[in-house]
Amino acid sequence: MILKIKSEASDKEISDVKSWLDTNYFPYQILTRYGYSLIAIQKKFSAELADTISRLPAVEDMIDINKEYRLASLSWKKERTTFSVNGNLIGGNAINIVAGPCSVESEEQIFKVAQFLNSVGVKFIRGGAYKPRTSPYSFQGLGKEGLKLIRKAADAFGLSVVTEVIDTSLIDEIAPYADIIQVGSRNMQNFYFLKQLGKVDKPILLKRGMYARIDEWLMAAEYLLTEGQEKIIMCERGVRTFDTTVRNTMDIAAIPLVKELSHLPVWADPSHGTGIRSLVTPLSLASIAAGADGLVLEIHPNPEEALSDGMQSLYLEQFKELLVKANPVAAAVGRVLENAAKSQNENFSNNHKTIEECVE
Amino acid sequence: MILKIKSEASDKEISDVKSWLDTNYFPYQILTRYGYSLIAIQKKFSAELADTISRLPAVEDMIDINKEYRLASLSWKKERTTFSVNGNLIGGNAINIVAGPCSVESEEQIFKVAQFLNSVGVKFIRGGAYKPRTSPYSFQGLGKEGLKLIRKAADAFGLSVVTEVIDTSLIDEIAPYADIIQVGSRNMQNFYFLKQLGKVDKPILLKRGMYARIDEWLMAAEYLLTEGQEKIIMCERGVRTFDTTVRNTMDIAAIPLVKELSHLPVWADPSHGTGIRSLVTPLSLASIAAGADGLVLEIHPNPEEALSDGMQSLYLEQFKELLVKANPVAAAVGRVLENAAKSQNENFSNNHKTIEECVE
Amino acid sequence: MILKIKSEASDKEISDVKSWLDTNYFPYQILTRYGYSLIAIQKKFSAELADTISRLPAVEDMIDINKEYRLASLSWKKERTTFSVNGNLIGGNAINIVAGPCSVESEEQIFKVAQFLNSVGVKFIRGGAYKPRTSPYSFQGLGKEGLKLIRKAADAFGLSVVTEVIDTSLIDEIAPYADIIQVGSRNMQNFYFLKQLGKVDKPILLKRGMYARIDEWLMAAEYLLTEGQEKIIMCERGVRTFDTTVRNTMDIAAIPLVKELSHLPVWADPSHGTGIRSLVTPLSLASIAAGADGLVLEIHPNPEEALSDGMQSLYLEQFKELLVKANPVAAAVGRVLENAAKSQNENFSNNHKTIEECVE
Amino acid sequence: MILKIKSEASDKEISDVKSWLDTNYFPYQILTRYGYSLIAIQKKFSAELADTISRLPAVEDMIDINKEYRLASLSWKKERTTFSVNGNLIGGNAINIVAGPCSVESEEQIFKVAQFLNSVGVKFIRGGAYKPRTSPYSFQGLGKEGLKLIRKAADAFGLSVVTEVIDTSLIDEIAPYADIIQVGSRNMQNFYFLKQLGKVDKPILLKRGMYARIDEWLMAAEYLLTEGQEKIIMCERGVRTFDTTVRNTMDIAAIPLVKELSHLPVWADPSHGTGIRSLVTPLSLASIAAGADGLVLEIHPNPEEALSDGMQSLYLEQFKELLVKANPVAAAVGRVLENAAKSQNENFSNNHKTIEECVE
Repeated sequence: MILKIKSEASDKEISDVKSWLDTNYFPYQILTRYGYSLIAIQKKFSAELADTISRLPAVEDMIDINKEYRLASLSWKKERTTFSVNGNLIGGNAINIVAGPCSVESEEQIFKVAQFLNSVGVKFIRGGAYKPRTSPYSFQGLGKEGLKLIRKAADAFGLSVVTEVIDTSLIDEIAPYADIIQVGSRNMQNFYFLKQLGKVDKPILLKRGMYARIDEWLMAAEYLLTEGQEKIIMCERGVRTFDTTVRNTMDIAAIPLVKELSHLPVWADPSHGTGIRSLVTPLSLASIAAGADGLVLEIHPNPEEALSDGMQSLYLEQFKELLVKANPVAAAVGRVLENAAKSQNENFSNNHKTIEECVE
Repeated sequence: MILKIKSEASDKEISDVKSWLDTNYFPYQILTRYGYSLIAIQKKFSAELADTISRLPAVEDMIDINKEYRLASLSWKKERTTFSVNGNLIGGNAINIVAGPCSVESEEQIFKVAQFLNSVGVKFIRGGAYKPRTSPYSFQGLGKEGLKLIRKAADAFGLSVVTEVIDTSLIDEIAPYADIIQVGSRNMQNFYFLKQLGKVDKPILLKRGMYARIDEWLMAAEYLLTEGQEKIIMCERGVRTFDTTVRNTMDIAAIPLVKELSHLPVWADPSHGTGIRSLVTPLSLASIAAGADGLVLEIHPNPEEALSDGMQSLYLEQFKELLVKANPVAAAVGRVLENAAKSQNENFSNNHKTIEECVE
Repeated sequence: MILKIKSEASDKEISDVKSWLDTNYFPYQILTRYGYSLIAIQKKFSAELADTISRLPAVEDMIDINKEYRLASLSWKKERTTFSVNGNLIGGNAINIVAGPCSVESEEQIFKVAQFLNSVGVKFIRGGAYKPRTSPYSFQGLGKEGLKLIRKAADAFGLSVVTEVIDTSLIDEIAPYADIIQVGSRNMQNFYFLKQLGKVDKPILLKRGMYARIDEWLMAAEYLLTEGQEKIIMCERGVRTFDTTVRNTMDIAAIPLVKELSHLPVWADPSHGTGIRSLVTPLSLASIAAGADGLVLEIHPNPEEALSDGMQSLYLEQFKELLVKANPVAAAVGRVLENAAKSQNENFSNNHKTIEECVE
Repeated sequence: MILKIKSEASDKEISDVKSWLDTNYFPYQILTRYGYSLIAIQKKFSAELADTISRLPAVEDMIDINKEYRLASLSWKKERTTFSVNGNLIGGNAINIVAGPCSVESEEQIFKVAQFLNSVGVKFIRGGAYKPRTSPYSFQGLGKEGLKLIRKAADAFGLSVVTEVIDTSLIDEIAPYADIIQVGSRNMQNFYFLKQLGKVDKPILLKRGMYARIDEWLMAAEYLLTEGQEKIIMCERGVRTFDTTVRNTMDIAAIPLVKELSHLPVWADPSHGTGIRSLVTPLSLASIAAGADGLVLEIHPNPEEALSDGMQSLYLEQFKELLVKANPVAAAVGRVLENAAKSQNENFSNNHKTIEECVE
């Protein structure tokens, strides 16, 4: 249940609502978001109590939203969400590009990647320090050491860091090193974890659960939103189906669909979405054509020797070619790649005025 | 089992192989395709018999292909398959466009669509006369009357007809009216039906089963190929997954994947692939970006009153806009839309003015 | 749309309804089933026409059943459907047992199986003559020769034959040899085929499509029912999911669910449902515990040398043990196995000694 | 990689292996389990290093187990795992029964359930205090207050408590109140969480992820096992498929399959497995017939007013009937229900001797 509070309600009137809820043992949460004053209540009222509360002076409307998201929906917030990360606009006209290895493996590896990204104008580096792995015998990441290395490499080359937090107990350790915190597919419905992340002052990259319906994915965003987090990026990364020819089935339709339902930006991760190197480029182009606001890609200086996800990691050279191919597709749908936008701007280009304005 | 026959084998030597198979009760099939002479055998040899037959002079190689396709694979035929339908090249650089209603409903409806398609330079009209419907109480199509109407409309406006055959017993009735015969999702593994279609002298549009793995889909093509059919178009139309938010989950990765595995052209059907009108355009663009050789789209002059598939049918005006948006995406991946290509070639055509203006 | 006709409507009044439909170009179908007189119409009425027709004297009710089954539902027919095949009751308290090889391979094989089944009191033999196979290079069955063999073996040992028809064009050839005609998983939504089978005077074993929802499966039965077929057996045989550890995921809940929704008997096929020999017995017991009215099982005198489905076929000895284990489970849910039931009834039978000893 | 250490290796030789790994920067973990001494290493050796280490005197064997579970497999531990919880044997011949509400809602509710369970001889009560809910607006559980209530009720009626931990940060709070800690479907692949649970001295009920393959589920158990946890119960609770007629598709075949692959006991949860009250009893019987070692069931004194999962909760009376029906099915497969076993024994039992006798 959500109670919408009248904008003109007095403090006394609001206070009366709270007292009433306390007296009747209804746990609640106050939300002020997007210009609304709301009280979210986790239990249902009996018909009788519903009648009583709806007559309290402060209450404008009483909404049963047990099965729906509201804060995440485009109907409650009409303007698309954009925000800036170290001066890079997320959700704007320029398509953000994030690239990097599955795991931080060594100083040499991550510096090589960072230098390369800088050289092609990419602004975001990704890399895991604590890795979710199906087997306890697989490489689990370098941990704290990995965090320090990716931060150092990013700082050296002016990049922002995207890295995953896999557990509530690691939030405090990882957050200081990250510019964007990634929630992985397997954590998308760890609701307690989402609540804690909702309170962290870092943007969240919310990957879709490999088994999650669209509404469940948006409901996970709603968990973040109810706790105060507004900087959320949805990221399609493939779902699990009967066809195991590829690692996952990338649900490209989810990109325009979520943009139709929600104001949040939507990125695409064709590396996990396919799991096969040769499919990453065509699916990156498809994602852009379908309206993706960003791409997250696994690259590695030496994929055959990668400690994880080698099969789906692009060679650095392949990634460069991908950018070359992606650029005209972005243009075909009225967008520009972030790295191209930047590098063209650097020279005082006047070609992309609009986009220049957007990305700042 | 497949026996590869030496190119220099004499008639007598080949004849010896056949006699041996007859004598030992092994049913077989002679195939000459793509420069190979093959004998396909449906039963396995014992080790002993395998040894005997592999020593026969005509036999170059003995291949156990129980679980694999060969004729459909790019490793057995290196050049991509292309063919012409009424002068329109399939599988070439120009992306074919097929559009039309789910069902032929009336002379007025189908003529309106045909005239419109002609006006925008599209060369293929689709429309079902015998419709597969989940419920026996739903509209099942106009039958023979529908076939006559779509043929008449197509002829009046210089279009080629794509229509579905839903049963072996209807092949002879429908084939004369069709330029391309569609095999629907629910028939993709009707193997007996495929065998009969393999003998028909009309190209086949082979839609992917909603539950079919990539290898099963290619194996269905193999059924057609073993019977002599070489003009085959694969068509991705969405698969069924746990997420029922949309009608199907369109597997965009299947497009580049099948092109990597096979020499056959691959089309995309975003209408059935999504089942939702607003997603058809973004998924059309994504299909093109991912390498699709053609698009199959449902359009209707009056979708709200369509007897079937109204929710996913585009308005004629929307379809026109789709073409406008699709053209630069095609260009971005080095292709051109068939309707635009034509209009560029046919300098004096006055039919296509509107779209010509649009696509530029 | 379905029009319910008043039971007291005069011929003239009914005739008026037909004339009205003819005049207004609405194709229709007359159904008299389960005590109802119905007219099924495949197109929707406009509001205006609906109003007109609902006032015709013969019309009792007008039902929009576009998305629902009616004849197959328990709400339209309250008594459970039972019928007899060669004196064996289907859908009764005794659980029917069907067993046999995937394919008829030779006279020796099928006679061996028939003799064995007779020795354990089983009344139904299964075996395919025309086999659906994923690959054109796999054994496709013996065809007509296979039909003759299974009929001959069945007759020799007093068994009834269950065999599959895979195509409309084969119905006339196969029906005379079969006591029950099987519709395979891949044909469950071949609607044209279902309509033809609806007119055949043989009971139908309708396997669930590997991708079919419960309502689609019942709608397939509705196709048979609207054409006059009333002897229908639903058969759960596993669905396709993300987990490919086993060949299919057997949906045991479908058994009680279909019995809750429909009056039709429900059988289970744990051989295809699992695809793994060691799981066939536990899933047979589970099916019985969940309420299955029959079991369909693949057995083979020599599974390692089977031309198809060897991995899931039980050895004859294993099948015997399965019956021994199944009997107390059947008793636990108030049922009895058909083979055990028979031997109890037929006091003077001396055929079933062995199994009688086993099952006690 | 796993190194098997020779049983006769000296401390010095083992120490040499560790030094070598430290020197070469290979993180490792020492395991002594089921009579094996093992060193698990998360990175792969180059061929050269592999050669070197395999020659160290302490090393008996070097096993690449990147994709496989070992400690969870029946091939590494031949005897089935059994253990006792407050005197109740888990994994023995008696089928354990756990029942209770989805959430602890009030003292009155949980005491009513506890008293009832005691009256029918059930030994385990379930109930969530911290609930995973798809929506942030749904009831999230009573938290700590709920834990105290279920413990108090359980103690009052001699029951053991099964309750879920949904986050690492809650382990310390919840563990003292639980006799068995449940890991929910959405947490089955939270690997960091599993590692922490592996160190907790309470048995773990490991529910299968709704999207998890059998090998992934067993690999999750392997995570617990590598950290020292040996008291693990696998629990099938339905997977997510294309068929949304029911909440989940219960994979009954997983029960015998996991028992074939692993030594761990396997329970079944037909409440979540189906999500529909009327299917809970038939699926409970099916689970028992298929070999389940326990049942977990949702019951509620007043399901219509339940704050969560009302639709799938059994009325207390229904649960009683379920036990009555389950008993002969258990007997049919040579088992007995725990509560029946108890009630027969109550007279002599002081410390549950009888149940131990039953399992023989």
